[in-house]
Amino acid sequence: MIQLQSSLNANGNGHKYYAGIDIGGTGIKCGIVDETGKIIAINKCPTKIDVKLAIEDISMLIADLQKQTGITIVGAGAGCPGIIDSRSGVVVSSSNLRWNNVPLAALLKNALGVPVRIANDANAAALGEYVNGSGKNYNSIVMITLGTGIGSGIVFDGKLFDGNLGAGAELGHEVIRYNGEQCACGRRGCFEAYASATALIRQAKCAMDKDEGSILWKLTDGDKNNLNGKLIFDAYRLKDNTAIKVVKKYTDYLAVGVVNLINSFHPQAILLGGGLCASSDVILPLLKKRVKKQIYRGIDYAPVEIVVAELGNDAGICGAAALLF
Amino acid sequence: MIQLQSSLNANGNGHKYYAGIDIGGTGIKCGIVDETGKIIAINKCPTKIDVKLAIEDISMLIADLQKQTGITIVGAGAGCPGIIDSRSGVVVSSSNLRWNNVPLAALLKNALGVPVRIANDANAAALGEYVNGSGKNYNSIVMITLGTGIGSGIVFDGKLFDGNLGAGAELGHEVIRYNGEQCACGRRGCFEAYASATALIRQAKCAMDKDEGSILWKLTDGDKNNLNGKLIFDAYRLKDNTAIKVVKKYTDYLAVGVVNLINSFHPQAILLGGGLCASSDVILPLLKKRVKKQIYRGIDYAPVEIVVAELGNDAGICGAAALLF
Repeated sequence: MIQLQSSLNANGNGHKYYAGIDIGGTGIKCGIVDETGKIIAINKCPTKIDVKLAIEDISMLIADLQKQTGITIVGAGAGCPGIIDSRSGVVVSSSNLRWNNVPLAALLKNALGVPVRIANDANAAALGEYVNGSGKNYNSIVMITLGTGIGSGIVFDGKLFDGNLGAGAELGHEVIRYNGEQCACGRRGCFEAYASATALIRQAKCAMDKDEGSILWKLTDGDKNNLNGKLIFDAYRLKDNTAIKVVKKYTDYLAVGVVNLINSFHPQAILLGGGLCASSDVILPLLKKRVKKQIYRGIDYAPVEIVVAELGNDAGICGAAALLF
Repeated sequence: MIQLQSSLNANGNGHKYYAGIDIGGTGIKCGIVDETGKIIAINKCPTKIDVKLAIEDISMLIADLQKQTGITIVGAGAGCPGIIDSRSGVVVSSSNLRWNNVPLAALLKNALGVPVRIANDANAAALGEYVNGSGKNYNSIVMITLGTGIGSGIVFDGKLFDGNLGAGAELGHEVIRYNGEQCACGRRGCFEAYASATALIRQAKCAMDKDEGSILWKLTDGDKNNLNGKLIFDAYRLKDNTAIKVVKKYTDYLAVGVVNLINSFHPQAILLGGGLCASSDVILPLLKKRVKKQIYRGIDYAPVEIVVAELGNDAGICGAAALLF
């Protein structure tokens, strides 16, 4: 079902419109996006693992969108999980989609008849926030998404900074603790292994075991498997000592990773995305205090703001379209 | 005294020439550099802390160079230690030079009568290696210099990547060991605190204390204060067990930092500079083996080479001039 996001502003008015495609492990979302990054309408369907069928679905979603809105797109961009060679337009490998060496840009171009660019989904989301989200007032941003893992994207001067052949910016896989927790990437002590939502939940479960009286037991009905990020911050707000300790330690780790990013990239802003940011009222003040303590001296002339991403799931659509801007 | 580095190729042949100025805590070096990054001649003098006198010295050095070579420069670049606002051309703070808020680019422009750009010295050195050193065959490099600290510079597609207002790329101040060794920057566990030459020497001194029979005691005439990087690698080559342990552990740390840089930036090449690289015969094989083990899976399509910088002290002059290219 097509969701209209904005009043129609069809072609013939001199504006250019693009399709933004967000390909996820479970669903595909397509949007029509104007040249300012505003989403006009969205259409979606479940993801088919068969590439040919997925391309057919995308073509149909976009055809329907164009019909419904009376808009003709002049280009399309797609964000995709995994390792994407953005220059040649090939999905090198995507474990979520089980796609390997798929020439996605060429296939989409063939199906849609317009120029196509593709990028890693986290990179696309960062570009979306930069173009029309909480990054739009900055010349340069680094965005990290605190979810199952830590996704990331870097935008400087309007352009994705994604390394040679688009292989760059796996910022979750910077080691912040030598020989620390095992990470899924094969290294030990990655930022992701300490500051993702998954890591926070692991840390809280571990702390619950040492405190039978923690409110967290009540909130989870006595079963740690019910624990999620929200409950940890709920317990923090209820002044549960264990939750307070866990959240403070978590923001210690988060701050170490964030200051690493500041020292490496020095953008105008660090954007935080992902589910945990629903509790930014707790996270942001703790994080900012810790970052301030660690920040490199003398760079006050180029301050770095820390802000929460605002587009949520729409960032991917907007950023995918913005690959063509 | 002017050193001629290359056969003269004076103006009138259509080529453009630039001055490259490398301002250090103890000495200032100026060079005439052609548009390919080749240094034609070099002139130097001790550094005067008084800015006005330093500018006068630089003017004289460059005037002499122009007279001697018959070349007229069309622009000048300067690399300077400390925090440099490369956009406005201001030395924000340089503890080595005791300069604060010095509008160096404007002062030099006034003195030399040509356009001037300035940058942090480590950034300039990276640009020099990119333009005419061991980085010249790559589209993107990250260079780190293993010295007293860890200096760094990033060049992508011919352009310094130096963050907002040039405040970026303090890659030595990424924490790789949460709550680890105290670093001069105020943080704990920085890459620099584990993988600089200073850190290696500290690690070796500590190991010597636990091994009275180590060859390192002979090489230092029984006085740890005589220890330097070269002696540690000499002892390694003599198969001293303590030196072998120290060097292997050191390259463990170095590899963690280098893989962090690869995962963050994904350049075509990582360049290693600094005095320790005189022992690259030992460091490189150990480092490459460790990096290979940790590198993110699936990115073989965009390999990252690790190479040793080759311009040495000339990189700063070449890169400063290349700020104008």
